[in-house]
Amino acid sequence: METAGVAEQLTDGIVALDSGIDRVPDATYGRRAMQLARMTGLGLAVAPGVALSFDLVRRLAEGAPFPELPEPPGADVPLVLRLSPLLRGLGGPDSLTGLGLAPDTLGPLGERIGADRARGQLARLITDFAALVHGLDLSALAGVRPHDGSVIRLDADGLGRLLSRYADLTGRAFPGTRTEQLAAAVTAMWKAWNGRSARLVRLAKGAPEQTGPGLVLQAMQFGGAAGLSGFGVFEQVDAGNGTPGRFGSFQRFRDVTLPGDPGTAPPEGPLCELPPSVLADLDTAGAALTRDAGDAFRIEFALLSDRLLLLDAMPVRRNARSAVRIAVDLARQGAISRERALLQIEPKSLIEYLHRQVAAEAPRDVIAAGLAASPGAATGRIVFTAGEAQAAAARGDHAVLVRGETGPEDIRGMHSAAAVLTLRGGMSSHAAVIARGMGVPCVVGATGLRIDLAGRRLLSADGRAFGPDDSLTLDGTAGEVMAGPVDLIAPELTGALSDLLGWADDVRSLGVRANADTPAEARIARDFGVDGIGLCRTENMFFDAARITTMREMILADCPETRQAALERLLPMQRADFVEMFGIMRGLPVTIRLLDPPLHEFLPTGPEETAEFARAMDLPVAEVTARARDLFEVNPMLGMRGVRLGVVMPEIYEMQARAIFEAAVEVNRGAAAPVVPEVMMPLVSAFRETELVKDRIDRVAAAVRTEQGVDFQYRLGIMVETPRAALRAGDLAATSAFLSFGTNDLTQMTYGLSRDDAGRFMREYVNLGVFDEDPFLSLDVEGVGELLLIASRRGRARNPRLTLGLCGEHGGDPSSIRFCKLAGFDYVSCSPFRVPIARLAAAQASLLTRSSAEPDG
Amino acid sequence: METAGVAEQLTDGIVALDSGIDRVPDATYGRRAMQLARMTGLGLAVAPGVALSFDLVRRLAEGAPFPELPEPPGADVPLVLRLSPLLRGLGGPDSLTGLGLAPDTLGPLGERIGADRARGQLARLITDFAALVHGLDLSALAGVRPHDGSVIRLDADGLGRLLSRYADLTGRAFPGTRTEQLAAAVTAMWKAWNGRSARLVRLAKGAPEQTGPGLVLQAMQFGGAAGLSGFGVFEQVDAGNGTPGRFGSFQRFRDVTLPGDPGTAPPEGPLCELPPSVLADLDTAGAALTRDAGDAFRIEFALLSDRLLLLDAMPVRRNARSAVRIAVDLARQGAISRERALLQIEPKSLIEYLHRQVAAEAPRDVIAAGLAASPGAATGRIVFTAGEAQAAAARGDHAVLVRGETGPEDIRGMHSAAAVLTLRGGMSSHAAVIARGMGVPCVVGATGLRIDLAGRRLLSADGRAFGPDDSLTLDGTAGEVMAGPVDLIAPELTGALSDLLGWADDVRSLGVRANADTPAEARIARDFGVDGIGLCRTENMFFDAARITTMREMILADCPETRQAALERLLPMQRADFVEMFGIMRGLPVTIRLLDPPLHEFLPTGPEETAEFARAMDLPVAEVTARARDLFEVNPMLGMRGVRLGVVMPEIYEMQARAIFEAAVEVNRGAAAPVVPEVMMPLVSAFRETELVKDRIDRVAAAVRTEQGVDFQYRLGIMVETPRAALRAGDLAATSAFLSFGTNDLTQMTYGLSRDDAGRFMREYVNLGVFDEDPFLSLDVEGVGELLLIASRRGRARNPRLTLGLCGEHGGDPSSIRFCKLAGFDYVSCSPFRVPIARLAAAQASLLTRSSAEPDG
Repeated sequence: METAGVAEQLTDGIVALDSGIDRVPDATYGRRAMQLARMTGLGLAVAPGVALSFDLVRRLAEGAPFPELPEPPGADVPLVLRLSPLLRGLGGPDSLTGLGLAPDTLGPLGERIGADRARGQLARLITDFAALVHGLDLSALAGVRPHDGSVIRLDADGLGRLLSRYADLTGRAFPGTRTEQLAAAVTAMWKAWNGRSARLVRLAKGAPEQTGPGLVLQAMQFGGAAGLSGFGVFEQVDAGNGTPGRFGSFQRFRDVTLPGDPGTAPPEGPLCELPPSVLADLDTAGAALTRDAGDAFRIEFALLSDRLLLLDAMPVRRNARSAVRIAVDLARQGAISRERALLQIEPKSLIEYLHRQVAAEAPRDVIAAGLAASPGAATGRIVFTAGEAQAAAARGDHAVLVRGETGPEDIRGMHSAAAVLTLRGGMSSHAAVIARGMGVPCVVGATGLRIDLAGRRLLSADGRAFGPDDSLTLDGTAGEVMAGPVDLIAPELTGALSDLLGWADDVRSLGVRANADTPAEARIARDFGVDGIGLCRTENMFFDAARITTMREMILADCPETRQAALERLLPMQRADFVEMFGIMRGLPVTIRLLDPPLHEFLPTGPEETAEFARAMDLPVAEVTARARDLFEVNPMLGMRGVRLGVVMPEIYEMQARAIFEAAVEVNRGAAAPVVPEVMMPLVSAFRETELVKDRIDRVAAAVRTEQGVDFQYRLGIMVETPRAALRAGDLAATSAFLSFGTNDLTQMTYGLSRDDAGRFMREYVNLGVFDEDPFLSLDVEGVGELLLIASRRGRARNPRLTLGLCGEHGGDPSSIRFCKLAGFDYVSCSPFRVPIARLAAAQASLLTRSSAEPDG
Repeated sequence: METAGVAEQLTDGIVALDSGIDRVPDATYGRRAMQLARMTGLGLAVAPGVALSFDLVRRLAEGAPFPELPEPPGADVPLVLRLSPLLRGLGGPDSLTGLGLAPDTLGPLGERIGADRARGQLARLITDFAALVHGLDLSALAGVRPHDGSVIRLDADGLGRLLSRYADLTGRAFPGTRTEQLAAAVTAMWKAWNGRSARLVRLAKGAPEQTGPGLVLQAMQFGGAAGLSGFGVFEQVDAGNGTPGRFGSFQRFRDVTLPGDPGTAPPEGPLCELPPSVLADLDTAGAALTRDAGDAFRIEFALLSDRLLLLDAMPVRRNARSAVRIAVDLARQGAISRERALLQIEPKSLIEYLHRQVAAEAPRDVIAAGLAASPGAATGRIVFTAGEAQAAAARGDHAVLVRGETGPEDIRGMHSAAAVLTLRGGMSSHAAVIARGMGVPCVVGATGLRIDLAGRRLLSADGRAFGPDDSLTLDGTAGEVMAGPVDLIAPELTGALSDLLGWADDVRSLGVRANADTPAEARIARDFGVDGIGLCRTENMFFDAARITTMREMILADCPETRQAALERLLPMQRADFVEMFGIMRGLPVTIRLLDPPLHEFLPTGPEETAEFARAMDLPVAEVTARARDLFEVNPMLGMRGVRLGVVMPEIYEMQARAIFEAAVEVNRGAAAPVVPEVMMPLVSAFRETELVKDRIDRVAAAVRTEQGVDFQYRLGIMVETPRAALRAGDLAATSAFLSFGTNDLTQMTYGLSRDDAGRFMREYVNLGVFDEDPFLSLDVEGVGELLLIASRRGRARNPRLTLGLCGEHGGDPSSIRFCKLAGFDYVSCSPFRVPIARLAAAQASLLTRSSAEPDG
């Protein structure tokens, strides 16, 4: 009874590929089976076969008897067994060819293709079967290359040796029936698919861990003596860049003499060997598939005495560049909607567009590995200080700045460097964050290296030393440090991407601004199609060599008069910065954050720099040191910074406000669209802080209006970086035009976790599953996200016209961008180099949150 | 019409003091008027008079005409004008005597008391009037001491000189009618009461800023020639300590010859000059007042030819000591309820009980002022290092430890010191927090001082130098540093306080635990009537000289084996600590926090200590320095600490868990009530952290159970210190027995404000009203408080049996305690020395949150 029941059920799990499109759903039979059924349904010539369902495969693997196979493929035809998982491209054993061949039953095939060739086919089956079922490598013995399309000739002795070797090693004879072979092969494929490493690969790629696989069994195809025969691959576009055309390869069936030398295998040839009629048929098949599925396909085919038979088809594997071109072309042709084109591109993949990359085939002399902190690759001479990097840039040389770790004093050098390498620090270290912001390739935490500062050498773990005359290549995409120059591919913003982002702008409702501190960054952002500047960190304007001394004078002033005098000298510098920024961003909003970092960050570090500054100031070194020590903080992140500076030393913010307003007046002269600067207070934790600062800024504005005799507008807002500011957003919104969430600091405070210090254990934390992801890279929805939701709800309840933005590193992260869209934010602001990513991610967020959003919508 | 209306209203604002208790409410006429009306109503002999309402006084001050006065006091009697505000003891001009006297109308009074005495009374009026109305000091000219009860004789010339001087200085003659005098005096009193400085005094004392004042007008009293006459003050208890008895003074009316020498004024004498019948009458009056109002009173009286007339009465002014005694005695007598006694004592005032104080009258040679970081006073020799403090303690000497600032390495020295002085730091600096915890008097931020370490001297701003042979007295209650020894009052836990706290325990539902790290602190806490230990910080156990080297070995271990070996040596030390703690706290819960601080806090500081440690470890100094540098953190508060240590280096927590469990087994042997240790994980931010640590701790417990062959119980809980832990309390509560809010760190993270660094601007922030109060001292209800409420709601929703506690500094702050009661917490935990405060505050919180709680409840 039970056996009969099982047998009936088994028959239920088998379907012929020509049963009709609807009877072979991919959720039951896998993607390959579905695709083959669709091809058959489209009237294309497809190798006949059947599909086995996920459920059937599992039960077969658990020992259920193998059922009879319907026609086709029929009872005594050699079969090809192929995996049919829910998603393709996830590895695993792919296929096994020739199932059903056995020493005793080779006769009919030998008659058709010759005895030695038939033995060759069997040898391939034995070899592949041994590898799949027993984990044995018999290929060397047989001279057979597994999974190779070439045809092998084998004499009877050779086959005998192979069979007896198989029996020796496995303890049993090679199975003589198709059913035995199938039962063992299906079980082995199921086990391999469900093995630990395959599951990990799927997990790592975000694919379902335990779905499937299904299997496809097709009749094996053999060419005849007449006409052209062989296997081929046809792609409708160039997989490397998406250009339409005919790409792929064709391999004529050829004989191989055994015991074979691998070098004698026939090379794959180009498609031009094919007759025009076959190419036309392939074009037709491809066009049919594109119409059917809205994608560009890779088709596997056999040519059998000039007759075309399709064996498989799947979308062309693609990189970011080709993916964009394919999607845009398909949308232009009307094969898919623009919305679907937008949804097909993974936003993060656009990083490949925006930086130079190491050529895939380039030889690499890797001397150390670190964290891939900022993507892109660059080659340059080694420099060990920011000053050397600037000097190199001034000479027009490319320099790789190598530091133990970086600090604010290195920022100028980082700007000048072609790439940055640090020996310490994590993905959120100063070097990593700043380099990403600048778009400078960066590798951090290359712990295998050591700096010999005295000898001005970089030492690798294998004992090599690199000096200032040596060049390095950094691959910030892969996290590799290489000796010498390496071939790089230049960045390119193709027309297809430009079109795609234009469509994204049509769709998205979330603004995309850039975090840009300098005119150079503002220009990049503008070129990348930004909606404004969401965060201009004014402090970075003061690290310039021409300004830092004045800044330090201001900080170390021992009386208000001295401070005021220094501030008056800083005023025109700040004003000039803002005039330039406003000019570049004309017509777009610019949000300027008032001075934020603790003042000690601006002070000289190290005895030499201190002595130099003391000489410049005509002060005793001891005095400079003592004043600097007075400013020392145990936890600078949580100290005297942000709006606290504005409350306790109001002159600084007054100077900055004046510079902003005077710059606005200057830029507005004769301009059609006046600048409306947005002034933002950082690190607010109490409403009264904002009152005190607002009062002073409003007074500065009134004074500038009177002095200049013209009116101008500005918007005052708050950077929400402390949990308390988020909780009190209702209060804060009452007198603010906007709230912008500084999710870097907000994440630090919500977790009690310093970005600078988290690197030491972040990797371990993510590995242990403590954090799903580094919360500094992808917004922590459950914690920080709740604070954002609380704040936006309370802020909008109090002030319905409140603008809400996000200006942390998360502004460039697609999943965080989607969160911002769901939370009803007005904009995100990210590094200039991530603006294209954010534009696409914002469009996807709009599409995915529309109730009507269907992939084909 | 309007004038008539106004006049009618004015008459409405006047009430005779004998109109009946209900007709003179203090909200309309002020506290003094109400008290006099009550005394009259009790049948006591009170000087007759009228009260003017707040509203009437305001309108008179605004220029309304002065109304007719009813009988008594009558039309032509000299009057005493006295302030009657809503609350007493808030300063301001108190009284004006003799209103209505004038040069032309002195006759009737002269006939009664003699012409020269009558002129003396007028001279007093002129002098006081000039001071009040015109701000002039004529007392020197007239030889009159203002506000002095003595009787003055003045001849006509003297009066003439005074009158013409008055006219010269004011530009007008002294007003000749009572109405003129009253109108001017009332206006002046109203203005003085509403002046800026008086308002600031009221604000500073938390009193209503702009209520009142009312006024009282009484007939002036003169003694006759017969019998004893004079003014006196009678108090039912000793204002200094609350002991019942007859206290006060009496001053016979005496003549003073003019121009008078202030030295000739009659001294106030003791009450024994009074006849027994008068004393008995005063006792009777006092008893009547106590029955009426439930308080101990101070009575002002006149004796007029042996006849007692009461002039005023108010509750005895008191300090903490007398307040407790008075309240407890009143409750014991049944004059007030125990609840009212509990509510009458300001919990913070109990600090006076718990420390020695500088005697009020003691001469002080103050050399610097700082922040009053930990109350109490102590005298000792100056020491500059922790080691010297320990050495002094070993010799039985008292030492004052003077440091720039303190760190963990100073803790032992702080324990040994009589008091601690730091030149830097705020109320939340290491020194302040630790000293408060220890109950050691402490002054921090004494910026006027400088340490000359080379010369081993402390230098004051006025150029004096103090060396190791000099002694200092610190007043941690006032924040003063004094040269040499100063008289101190010893601490005392009197029977009355003990009774009061017993009543508090009967009433309160909120548990009070102590933050105690050592057996010594646990003993203090137990003596102070604690309900358990809410926070035992295990790290402080490792700073002991015998342990620190092993601890450092563990930290700097370069392989797991070395670390394990060091941990095995630390295990018995930790176990011994816990055995002792559990023994002291037998029957009460003990919550042990696993290691929390970043490991670098344990490393040697400074070259000498580093060299010494390197010698002990037989390591090169450079290696020790390099390893220490590897552990450096930019923001140690937000770095590799707390549960992060437990996740990344699990061996440490495993050792601690083993020590706790083995100690519990040892203490439980033969004990009736077994110890149930509570193990707490610090700085949690993600649920998975707690899973990983819980898993290991549970395994250690299972191992100890197997090894020891006995069972024991323990509770695992979480210290909620990060905003994220508060938000995710629902998750955390699922597997936790308790959540304890570490509000120190939670406040730091919610504000983004480091306690160690906030000192630099906290004072300015509070002054500017940015923060109402230092949020590290009193819980920030709006921000941190909301997180506590969110967490307690979510935690209890997930796990209704969840225990909720608070173990930050706020656990000793009465308003924070009240918040915890309202939030439904189970306990607060505070410094041992604040336990009595917390017990009282918890009782008050229970009383104030009962719906039936009335002051006389």
